[in-house]
Amino acid sequence: MTDTALRMVAFDGDDTLWRSQDFFDEAQAAFEAILAPYLDLADARLHERLYEVERRNIGIFGYGVKGMALSMIEAAVEMTDGRIGGRDVHRIVQLAHSLLRHPVELLPGIREAVEAIAATHPIVLITKGDLFHQEAKVRDSGMSHLFRRIEIVSEKDVPTYARLLDEFAVEPARFAMVGNSLRSDIAPVLALGGWGVHVPYHTTWLHEREAELPDRTRLREVRDAGSLAAAIAGIERELTSDNGR
Amino acid sequence: MTDTALRMVAFDGDDTLWRSQDFFDEAQAAFEAILAPYLDLADARLHERLYEVERRNIGIFGYGVKGMALSMIEAAVEMTDGRIGGRDVHRIVQLAHSLLRHPVELLPGIREAVEAIAATHPIVLITKGDLFHQEAKVRDSGMSHLFRRIEIVSEKDVPTYARLLDEFAVEPARFAMVGNSLRSDIAPVLALGGWGVHVPYHTTWLHEREAELPDRTRLREVRDAGSLAAAIAGIERELTSDNGR
Repeated sequence: MTDTALRMVAFDGDDTLWRSQDFFDEAQAAFEAILAPYLDLADARLHERLYEVERRNIGIFGYGVKGMALSMIEAAVEMTDGRIGGRDVHRIVQLAHSLLRHPVELLPGIREAVEAIAATHPIVLITKGDLFHQEAKVRDSGMSHLFRRIEIVSEKDVPTYARLLDEFAVEPARFAMVGNSLRSDIAPVLALGGWGVHVPYHTTWLHEREAELPDRTRLREVRDAGSLAAAIAGIERELTSDNGR
Repeated sequence: MTDTALRMVAFDGDDTLWRSQDFFDEAQAAFEAILAPYLDLADARLHERLYEVERRNIGIFGYGVKGMALSMIEAAVEMTDGRIGGRDVHRIVQLAHSLLRHPVELLPGIREAVEAIAATHPIVLITKGDLFHQEAKVRDSGMSHLFRRIEIVSEKDVPTYARLLDEFAVEPARFAMVGNSLRSDIAPVLALGGWGVHVPYHTTWLHEREAELPDRTRLREVRDAGSLAAAIAGIERELTSDNGR
């Protein structure tokens, strides 16, 4: 690999390399089915109630399956006024087991895209959530050998990216982040002066959708994994022509 | 700081810098009190039953409060044949909240010991468990500025220490790990050819007690934090006199 103007390309994990939100959505549907016998579903606003509990617990539980399951149990007891039975609580715990054991499903074309970019640029993985679960997914993805570093962080905000870029010794203007979440993958990197490559996923958790993007100069939107390598090559060309001026 | 023969001193977090197992023990007692009305406690072997569930779940949940709470709920439903009520399940979830919100209590003399060692050697923190909770404890400890790096890992075994030493660019013979767990802090570091400084804690989780230590040459035992700086100075002297031969 010759010296590149873009010094490092980072990838998000969940819903960028592999499916994730789909499985959370399925677990949420299963949760609602477990609660259905206790509640008048038409009136229950289950989605909103669960999201309220999850949001108030994020500062304590962080992100990930285990915190979601505990929030589900908390919400289930509150919404049924304590009437939920032990067996149904157990079924909620089993939702966590299923999510944590679920085989990794790479998104279409992503292996080829990551391999193509790894052939031209140093790449790293920056993923958010539960350490243990994320490590298992990275291992099962069969792609861990492609990444120079694998960083699992509890929050993807400006201070986190600033710390990582410092550790990598890469200046923001020569760093690109590839991900599906405007809030976690794109906005903080743009704010630091880096490049964001946004690959939208068909479903995104409410929490990850909202983001302020005051300056879109260094934002690239691609439709799917098939267009990623070209987007990175485009950034490389722009940086090179800037330097050549 | 002049160049030292011992290139890096690493500290464990839980029960080395701050109290932890005590709070888990208290949560376990509270768990047993919640279950008491459902069970004949004399016959229940609650400790062993819970430990069984926790052990079978470690490969799925990893270490930490959230996994413990989910295992408690699972065990509670199983041990009561589903009779546990929703309100009591909620009380178990609240045990997780309490543990996660508990203020950090530094162990006696540890701040002074860490500061003294930080004045002579580069120090890092290597702690195991839940990313989000460990980060909160590091932040609340008021000691994070003393550490060059803070590494939160899912397992403390030989491959983990080998990877970290590689990242730190430190050879094992010039690395010392300070901690309370023979299994997680001492045995893998000794196996790699590094130094282990064992500070026993008054209570240790069953899982962390057992360890094979075939070679104790580079093991130092200290009684409490007050003796740590002297133990590190002793290792530094040994390395220097070895080099001078």
